[in-house]
Amino acid sequence: MIPLRDNIRNMAGYVPGFQPDDGQDWIKLNTNENPYPPSPAVREAILRELGEDGARLRQYPDAASRAGRQEAARLYGVDPAWVIMANGSDEVLNNLIRAFAGEGEEIAYVHPSYSYYATLAEIQGARVCTFGLTDKWELDGFPERYEGKLFFLTNPNAPLGFAYPREFIEELAGRVAGMLVVDEAYADFADDNALDLVHKYENLVVTRTLSKSYSLAGMRLGLAVARPEVIAALDKIRDHYNLDRLAQAAVTAALRDQEYFSRCVQRIRETRDWFSVELQVLDYSVIPSQGNYLFASPPDRDGKRVYDALYQRRILVRYFSDPALAHGLRISIGTREEMMATLDALREIG
Amino acid sequence: MIPLRDNIRNMAGYVPGFQPDDGQDWIKLNTNENPYPPSPAVREAILRELGEDGARLRQYPDAASRAGRQEAARLYGVDPAWVIMANGSDEVLNNLIRAFAGEGEEIAYVHPSYSYYATLAEIQGARVCTFGLTDKWELDGFPERYEGKLFFLTNPNAPLGFAYPREFIEELAGRVAGMLVVDEAYADFADDNALDLVHKYENLVVTRTLSKSYSLAGMRLGLAVARPEVIAALDKIRDHYNLDRLAQAAVTAALRDQEYFSRCVQRIRETRDWFSVELQVLDYSVIPSQGNYLFASPPDRDGKRVYDALYQRRILVRYFSDPALAHGLRISIGTREEMMATLDALREIG
Repeated sequence: MIPLRDNIRNMAGYVPGFQPDDGQDWIKLNTNENPYPPSPAVREAILRELGEDGARLRQYPDAASRAGRQEAARLYGVDPAWVIMANGSDEVLNNLIRAFAGEGEEIAYVHPSYSYYATLAEIQGARVCTFGLTDKWELDGFPERYEGKLFFLTNPNAPLGFAYPREFIEELAGRVAGMLVVDEAYADFADDNALDLVHKYENLVVTRTLSKSYSLAGMRLGLAVARPEVIAALDKIRDHYNLDRLAQAAVTAALRDQEYFSRCVQRIRETRDWFSVELQVLDYSVIPSQGNYLFASPPDRDGKRVYDALYQRRILVRYFSDPALAHGLRISIGTREEMMATLDALREIG
Repeated sequence: MIPLRDNIRNMAGYVPGFQPDDGQDWIKLNTNENPYPPSPAVREAILRELGEDGARLRQYPDAASRAGRQEAARLYGVDPAWVIMANGSDEVLNNLIRAFAGEGEEIAYVHPSYSYYATLAEIQGARVCTFGLTDKWELDGFPERYEGKLFFLTNPNAPLGFAYPREFIEELAGRVAGMLVVDEAYADFADDNALDLVHKYENLVVTRTLSKSYSLAGMRLGLAVARPEVIAALDKIRDHYNLDRLAQAAVTAALRDQEYFSRCVQRIRETRDWFSVELQVLDYSVIPSQGNYLFASPPDRDGKRVYDALYQRRILVRYFSDPALAHGLRISIGTREEMMATLDALREIG
């Protein structure tokens, strides 16, 4: 038997959302991908980096991803020392645990939210604590002072879609003894975000991804904004060349093209709000969403039944067997046409 | 003060080899990059994945990098379950430590070899032990039975270039109680490798990179070959979508074009062997190398003097201030023309 650490031997491993092979004719609304292509500037930047013979690929990339950091810093109005670039925000989440929580130490997150925090903690050998939600989407039983090393708050909540108010985040920053990580994977679709609060609370970290709002799930790009001491620690932990050349070209170009970005986000928000109303017409109960997805429950509260019926029609949404979520479905917001087809199918399914 | 783990607060962080900005006219022989562009098939595969509008980038990549694994498995004559793909072999090295060595547990490697193992162990909070080398390039003081969790053997040795014989690796596999990781970053330039030994020794892992022999340092691509139990553990630890779409396209195409690969490797080996002779004509002492670099010492054994003089002539090689290495330089093998210019400079420097 190979001498694995017990935590690794015993853990199950994370199962990402089902990905059908490319080129199959699914309406794919299961992993919160953006229905629109990335900015044309992304493709152009990659082509430029490739050049006529790909010769630049033979040399290591810029170890610090300086161009990307500068672009993000400009966009968010901070100094580049407050920004780190990553292979998806997942890389930052992983490295935050490595920076702050040792073996046997505790991290916490909200259930339901992004269960990958638990996987990352298991890899580290850290302990995991979860806090549930009340009917009013408030944290249930969260202590006056949380003494764990990290608390992850997915805001807007995924898969439910609601957002915690800004005042609550400020309150939490004071109640968390360790680091408060506000995972803003979906904040670009929301009315508000916590980015400016990193200046006010030294234990606050905001993470972002380009997977959803910038249509770059296929490129694995994310970032974090926090105080320079936090960024410096994350810089020690990340791979010394964490972003390859094409990823660096892509992230810089994507962040720069804010006009394209805003247009896509606006369309998705509009489609989301319209689709929410239409679902309610079908007697679905829908949680008001600040993300690019809706959590919606059919009248009989049988998420699996509707998931299966949609699947048969080659429409893929996300069903969670977790008892806290099994009554509904998380439906990503696609194009208007995709959502109309989904509504037709839901009407048919009943 | 932010509540960092002590090991992270206290560690220095790894400093990669100096990278001048793109487009500057250095002869760059300091990070063992390949002087030739990657196979044209790599660029073509990336262009295909990009398509006309980059639309595929909006969707997550294949989580398991199946095409790359299959190609590597075919090339190395193993089942795909014996292969994992990674963002550079550094990712695999990192995850091997996470799989096998907990906080306070020990890993070891050879000094001098790749000091990044120590950085990765520090991040984990593991202890680090090093074994030196005798005059005959044998391990100094290595115990009959090594009880640490992992032993990393860089073969061929970097920065020195010599290779341990196959019999010694087999012997080591028996003497290491934990895992023996043979880091074959440079094995494509060598006469032999340990790949087939993974079938014979269940504690043996072989890591490879596409950075050097496949001219893809800019894409961060590597892999490991080991028993399926080891690969399954590494699969739990890696990011669930660790390779982005363009990286997956690149690695698959690069591994497939063996004709181009062999031609590049052959040219580099020829240049290396010729350059080694020429250095000896200049009274340099040169270690016979199985990599794409030479470790060479000038007659006065003052590596820094020669490094500085080359730097002034815009030729970049690698100097290590480490007392075990300060008498020489590691010189990457570039094109024949680059090496001729380097020889001219060395003659002038004296």
